Amino acid sequence: MRESEIISLFLRHLKRQGGLPLGDDAGAIKLGDEWLVATNDMLVRKTDVPEVMTPEQVGFKAVTMNVSDVAAMGAKPVGFLFSLGVPENLSGEYLEGIAKGIGEAIEFYGVPVLSADTNEADDLIIDGIALGRTKRLLTRSGARPGDLVCVTGDLGRALAGLLVWKHGLDVPEKIREPLYEKLLEPRARVEEGTKLSKLANAAIDVSDGPSKELHLLARMSGVRIEVEAQKLPVREEAREVAKALGLDPIEMALASGEEFELIFTIPENLLEELPIRCTVIGRVLEGAGVYITTDGKRREMPVLGWEHLNRGVKGTYREMFR
Amino acid sequence: MRESEIISLFLRHLKRQGGLPLGDDAGAIKLGDEWLVATNDMLVRKTDVPEVMTPEQVGFKAVTMNVSDVAAMGAKPVGFLFSLGVPENLSGEYLEGIAKGIGEAIEFYGVPVLSADTNEADDLIIDGIALGRTKRLLTRSGARPGDLVCVTGDLGRALAGLLVWKHGLDVPEKIREPLYEKLLEPRARVEEGTKLSKLANAAIDVSDGPSKELHLLARMSGVRIEVEAQKLPVREEAREVAKALGLDPIEMALASGEEFELIFTIPENLLEELPIRCTVIGRVLEGAGVYITTDGKRREMPVLGWEHLNRGVKGTYREMFR
Repeated sequence: MRESEIISLFLRHLKRQGGLPLGDDAGAIKLGDEWLVATNDMLVRKTDVPEVMTPEQVGFKAVTMNVSDVAAMGAKPVGFLFSLGVPENLSGEYLEGIAKGIGEAIEFYGVPVLSADTNEADDLIIDGIALGRTKRLLTRSGARPGDLVCVTGDLGRALAGLLVWKHGLDVPEKIREPLYEKLLEPRARVEEGTKLSKLANAAIDVSDGPSKELHLLARMSGVRIEVEAQKLPVREEAREVAKALGLDPIEMALASGEEFELIFTIPENLLEELPIRCTVIGRVLEGAGVYITTDGKRREMPVLGWEHLNRGVKGTYREMFR
Repeated sequence: MRESEIISLFLRHLKRQGGLPLGDDAGAIKLGDEWLVATNDMLVRKTDVPEVMTPEQVGFKAVTMNVSDVAAMGAKPVGFLFSLGVPENLSGEYLEGIAKGIGEAIEFYGVPVLSADTNEADDLIIDGIALGRTKRLLTRSGARPGDLVCVTGDLGRALAGLLVWKHGLDVPEKIREPLYEKLLEPRARVEEGTKLSKLANAAIDVSDGPSKELHLLARMSGVRIEVEAQKLPVREEAREVAKALGLDPIEMALASGEEFELIFTIPENLLEELPIRCTVIGRVLEGAGVYITTDGKRREMPVLGWEHLNRGVKGTYREMFR
């Protein structure tokens, strides 16, 4: 069964949903005059963890991926929970690394652990859960014609780093280091999310890759999105790796997942009030679909995943990690 | 590594905790004038699910075990989340059964699903998360000398049912049915929990067995608990199974886990104000430890699990399911 089939099977049986239908970065219910936001994301070592990652990085990332979903809703994270599945043969050192990574992350994000559970399982599993609160919710369906489309930070380093590692690419340390930093130690945009909640119309975090997120934003908001390739913030280090592998750096950046940057849309007149660093990459218009203009040529943006770009490596995005 | 070792390893690294230290039925943080309660509990098919259970019962139970922890905190459940680990070879029918069971449970408890996640994994895993809210928190550490010790419902049917199934015991339908009902379709005491939150001093739900829960209550509250064996609400059906297996019915009841009844302590003068059905089984006194009086003879209550009672079946409580 494919993931999409499993999801629609469950949706048929889950009629009772929260204040927001399932399908956003997180769920939400109204408590008093605030929204309580809740999200969960399971990390399975076999499919989600590249071997190059230390256990500390794995633990930290289990927090980051959930806190990022809370930030994408415009909410301030207020609590973290996790369930562990621990295989019998896992070493105490590895497990301690996980604990250290989670501990560092909750300090970094200033979020308390509310509850934890441990179980025996066949593979290492960390199911992370994050809670947040906000007066105003940012959803994937709030983009309005006229909005600017923006993104925090830069795009493409996570996939560039993965490709360097997967292909054993020999690149200078000063290129490898910023790519591996993003691949192994990405950080959630928590401060940006809470500031965006006051001004932006829609937001999504980059989990599956910017092209997939842009398509989701357009579809869930019922709008068209136009992006200009030259405006995409792709760093030189990522461009060099793309060039070395014969890939289009823009396509690589659009396919790069787990960056945890925030893509958001905001009315043009509110942009200068926004106290965060970001890059305007396009516009929201009436209509449908996602389009990208490169050197004056406009075309539909394909839904890109790493599998479109990566020659000689088979499997799904997640399988690629091994 | 044993579960207790894993837990203490993690506790060393998780300094930042919520409004309540880890170790209660659920975690909690203050939001305005209310407590937000959050809990998670992972169900792994291989170790947690007896083969006699239908997938619908498994799905329902994944909700019940989490909602029960929320109820034990005196909170009203307000949201449910879950993460699935799905092995490749799991049939669509089985998965649909799980979905149906979760769907039925959220209707039964009136709790919306806020978020869900699905992943590939080696074994079927359902990590359930429940959120709740309450003005007054019931903890495991609130029992006070002078309190009465009470329990909702009855005790022992879950383990009696498990023993009937495990030993292939030939018992009349009218005995088997109420035991299997409790083993396969236990229900969380949600209404009782919210009513208790106004009057009780401490509460815990029966997950690992009443004797273990009583020891936890006594230790975490810094008190002594005295229980009278003859007052324990053990139904005739459970007693008959114990007799047939040569077991002490009281010991069986005290070892019976996943009953999801609530054990609570309450000042004597408040008991008659309490609008729920329950049984007084003992008293809280100054001191330490848990004692039980049987036929006028008082002794320390052993920490009982099924393993003390079950002859010829080796393994942990959870392993017994297979």
